Amino acid sequence: MSSATGAKREAEPPMPTGRPRDPEVEKRVLNAVFALLTEKGYSGLRIDDVARVSGAAKTTIYRRWSSLPHLVVDTIAASMGNRDFAATDDPVADLRRVCVMLVESINADSLAAALDVHRQPEEELRTRYRQRIIEPPRKLLVDTLLRAKDAGLLRSRVAPTDLADLLIGGAIYRLAILHTPVDAAQIDAVIDEIVVAGPPAATVDGVQ
Amino acid sequence: MSSATGAKREAEPPMPTGRPRDPEVEKRVLNAVFALLTEKGYSGLRIDDVARVSGAAKTTIYRRWSSLPHLVVDTIAASMGNRDFAATDDPVADLRRVCVMLVESINADSLAAALDVHRQPEEELRTRYRQRIIEPPRKLLVDTLLRAKDAGLLRSRVAPTDLADLLIGGAIYRLAILHTPVDAAQIDAVIDEIVVAGPPAATVDGVQ
Repeated sequence: MSSATGAKREAEPPMPTGRPRDPEVEKRVLNAVFALLTEKGYSGLRIDDVARVSGAAKTTIYRRWSSLPHLVVDTIAASMGNRDFAATDDPVADLRRVCVMLVESINADSLAAALDVHRQPEEELRTRYRQRIIEPPRKLLVDTLLRAKDAGLLRSRVAPTDLADLLIGGAIYRLAILHTPVDAAQIDAVIDEIVVAGPPAATVDGVQ
Repeated sequence: MSSATGAKREAEPPMPTGRPRDPEVEKRVLNAVFALLTEKGYSGLRIDDVARVSGAAKTTIYRRWSSLPHLVVDTIAASMGNRDFAATDDPVADLRRVCVMLVESINADSLAAALDVHRQPEEELRTRYRQRIIEPPRKLLVDTLLRAKDAGLLRSRVAPTDLADLLIGGAIYRLAILHTPVDAAQIDAVIDEIVVAGPPAATVDGVQ
């Protein structure tokens, strides 16, 4: 959440007096929305309840979030934690790190709220959710696969976008539907299969 | 649905009089439940509404389905159509057919109802849903992958259960979340990658 809501305020000095926008209030509001989403779902979410549970004034909430879709998508993004990623010059190592980050960013409670969003017909909500929650990690994964491909390190002949959808879909299915999250060994096994193998064991000095 | 609800009555002769259990009534009830699930979700489903929309008496509904979870899981199963599968002695061809069947059996409306079920805490519902909707096609796919493996036709070294979860999860993600269903060429590309290649083109008579 910090990266999403804190960027604009980084350069500001501490303000000992007056009424600065309070990150603690934002956090309380997002926590309240998350609890209400989990309990009642999107269609049962009321701004009055958000104000009551968070203790924030409705005017404060509306000043920060212009609509319920903004508020809900920010809430789900915050629940997924930091998804920033710094690429290195080793696309295969990056691929493992991206996959681990994706698996760690989805958790059962966030997914329940996310699955609820996917049932809603509201266009603004779907569009914001897609732009903010779905596309950035998906693009990161596709780009990393393309970097591996450009470096001649991708063994798989499946299109990188289709590979990314298999990986993301598999992780979501395992957590949200089967309730047995993917583990590190399973991530490694899948990545070992789609990237070019290292030198055969016999050619490595001193190792059979 | 026919295979699930009609099996017991196959041997019975037509009954011109009396009050036989009417498959048309069952179908009307399942259609009503499906429409209500889509509109209101599981938590908004009321047996009174099912009776009103379907025109069936509540006693009729309770005689056929002992609980709401039974009724809802039967409804979702019916919306997915026939998922019976007859294996042949060609596990690779079977693998393609199973994957095509899986992709065809999930559709946007069924998935919306299914995603709603996954949000419910009700244990009976989750258990029935898993036994009836999730596990049979998953087991079929795993078994087919194992048959290909036993025949020496599986190139992939990823565990068959993990492969199955990638394939199913990828298909669900593409339809339910990205709204761009997997197409036949994409299924073929993925299966070509996980199974052993046919003979190289140069060794086939008359073909370069």
